[in-house]
Amino acid sequence: MAISRLCPNIRYFHQIGACTRNDQTGSKSGSGRPKVSPQLNRWSRARAIRSGQKLERSNLRTQPPATESPPRPLPLPVNPDDAVNFDRADARFVKSIYMVSDGTGWTAEQCVNAALGQFDYCLVDRGCPVSTHLFSGIDDAEKLLEITKQAAKEGALLVYTLADPSLASAAKRACQLWGVPSTDVLGPITEAIASHLGVSPSGLPRGASGLPLSDDYFRRIEAVEFTIKQDDGASPKNLAKADIVLTGVSRTGKTPLSIYLAQKGYKVANVPIVMGVSMPKILFEVDPMKVFGLTINPLVLQNIRRARTKTMGLSSDGRSNYSEMDYVREELEFARRLFAENPLWPVIDVTGKAIEETAAVVLRLYHDRKQKCTMPRISKRY
Amino acid sequence: MAISRLCPNIRYFHQIGACTRNDQTGSKSGSGRPKVSPQLNRWSRARAIRSGQKLERSNLRTQPPATESPPRPLPLPVNPDDAVNFDRADARFVKSIYMVSDGTGWTAEQCVNAALGQFDYCLVDRGCPVSTHLFSGIDDAEKLLEITKQAAKEGALLVYTLADPSLASAAKRACQLWGVPSTDVLGPITEAIASHLGVSPSGLPRGASGLPLSDDYFRRIEAVEFTIKQDDGASPKNLAKADIVLTGVSRTGKTPLSIYLAQKGYKVANVPIVMGVSMPKILFEVDPMKVFGLTINPLVLQNIRRARTKTMGLSSDGRSNYSEMDYVREELEFARRLFAENPLWPVIDVTGKAIEETAAVVLRLYHDRKQKCTMPRISKRY
Repeated sequence: MAISRLCPNIRYFHQIGACTRNDQTGSKSGSGRPKVSPQLNRWSRARAIRSGQKLERSNLRTQPPATESPPRPLPLPVNPDDAVNFDRADARFVKSIYMVSDGTGWTAEQCVNAALGQFDYCLVDRGCPVSTHLFSGIDDAEKLLEITKQAAKEGALLVYTLADPSLASAAKRACQLWGVPSTDVLGPITEAIASHLGVSPSGLPRGASGLPLSDDYFRRIEAVEFTIKQDDGASPKNLAKADIVLTGVSRTGKTPLSIYLAQKGYKVANVPIVMGVSMPKILFEVDPMKVFGLTINPLVLQNIRRARTKTMGLSSDGRSNYSEMDYVREELEFARRLFAENPLWPVIDVTGKAIEETAAVVLRLYHDRKQKCTMPRISKRY
Repeated sequence: MAISRLCPNIRYFHQIGACTRNDQTGSKSGSGRPKVSPQLNRWSRARAIRSGQKLERSNLRTQPPATESPPRPLPLPVNPDDAVNFDRADARFVKSIYMVSDGTGWTAEQCVNAALGQFDYCLVDRGCPVSTHLFSGIDDAEKLLEITKQAAKEGALLVYTLADPSLASAAKRACQLWGVPSTDVLGPITEAIASHLGVSPSGLPRGASGLPLSDDYFRRIEAVEFTIKQDDGASPKNLAKADIVLTGVSRTGKTPLSIYLAQKGYKVANVPIVMGVSMPKILFEVDPMKVFGLTINPLVLQNIRRARTKTMGLSSDGRSNYSEMDYVREELEFARRLFAENPLWPVIDVTGKAIEETAAVVLRLYHDRKQKCTMPRISKRY
């Protein structure tokens, strides 16, 4: 049976940190080192074909067989220390959430993340440890059922976004049959929209319809490329072309905020404020309705700058007093005076705010100022 | 009544393009030019306070009153021509979707976008025109009810993500009362997670709990900053520090893909392939398991390059033959040979794929190659 070839529960949290041939103890399956299953090989092969990967050379022949590969730690994007610190005995306390999608899976991930935001208070300090597992591009019932079985075995919650209605109903039935708690994220909203528009959904995940990418899509790409080029005051002459201009002292989050807004389709330029350095003249010539000042609590800023100085070995701009409290306060005061001289620029306090939250504030203000005769909103046409 | 002070249906699509004092004809309310409502002023004021904006100077005194502001087109992030081309008579055919959130609203937006993906076939060429309106930071019942009434008036579908359970139930009741079709996106998944974890949700939108930002959050910021610095082969010496290295010829989407992956917490470097230019030696020294080649159909690439040449006035690197078919084919062949010499690099065909989709393929392959003993998945700890 397929399940027996998969890693058992107990090893899941090792996989997060490192999944190697030497790390196979504690297997419940009793088979010692699990083999790469024929099913898994089929999946990889099918995926590789879809992705345009050159199978013959890279995947099947040249790449050394999985079981012979040397132990290699997984370069983790998030919490790389978790797996190391995570004791095997804790595994049974960890609650798993499986996210299954026949598309990219990013919607399922966003929804689970947002919902988990309401459990932050107990996720802190691992009060109730949770692990999420994203299975994307699951476009046939066989794979879906295998994942559902594994979810049942692991006692996981299964969250799915399946555009294909036959897959969605298969997921629902399988979860009922095997007692897996489940939530269909996309089904209800798709039904509501279908009923609202009076047309049927295609049943295809985005991108599978073969329709060309939209103009809107290319505009978003252009916004990202524009924004990267303008980062950190690189091309002040282009400020006039930006939709939004951000200004603030070092470490107020201008760069990640710019990028976040760019991904939403806005061309963003950011201009650093450095004490004693005069701002580019053009900043005072562009439409002040599109300029936003960023400020932050001095203590918090000092902490962020100290951490940065530590990481970088020195201050990012070579100033040795970069993270000293007197300097931090004076630079923020320098920025405050600049903002006071430009009273049409809203000033946003980013203290304790995630980039997503600051982005929401910027865009609300941006649209509020433009759409004076309606309820503040961000509108878009399809 | 509050509603009468808001822009009536017929003007919504003008607001998308430009909302000015000269654009007030066609009002159904019969009141001529709508005033900025006291309610709206309260909202703007409350928001400004939350955002740290300096009210006295920038919002209330210095900024000219709304009714006196000169006509100013809204610099639109998306489809700026829509409003211009959109005839007022069409307004009644356009279906509105209201998205209401007591947080940033990005989850509601992502879900609506994903669901709309299933109606792409009829959104193309405005077969069934749709407009979405995002109301974020809606944290009291008064605002919520005003929006719901407006949704009723406009015949809109209301999609909400309200962490506060009393707001969520108020939304549900109001929608039932006024016959507004509605979908609660976050409620079901939050309930499922609460039941799965055996703890109660906080009822607070993310960021409202006052908890400090997580280490994971700062790692994502760091990944974005790293990735911007490495863009377009800027610092080959740092390739070793990257989690993922992308390589491909100009206009295969390396930059936006890098940024998208960076936002998910991966440090990404990208190295351009230019015919006749030797690749940095370090590219062949880093772990080949983290290098990904990008390729694309030559005809599609030529079209993209032609469009770019047109926009930029000349080719981005000054090569006059940049978008000529012979050159395009030869450069892709040059890339193909490079990929053939490095058979451990998967090669992904990006033709017709959105960045999100290519990102999903890259991350699936990346994790598949690391986690050889399990079902392909992307795992994360909380």
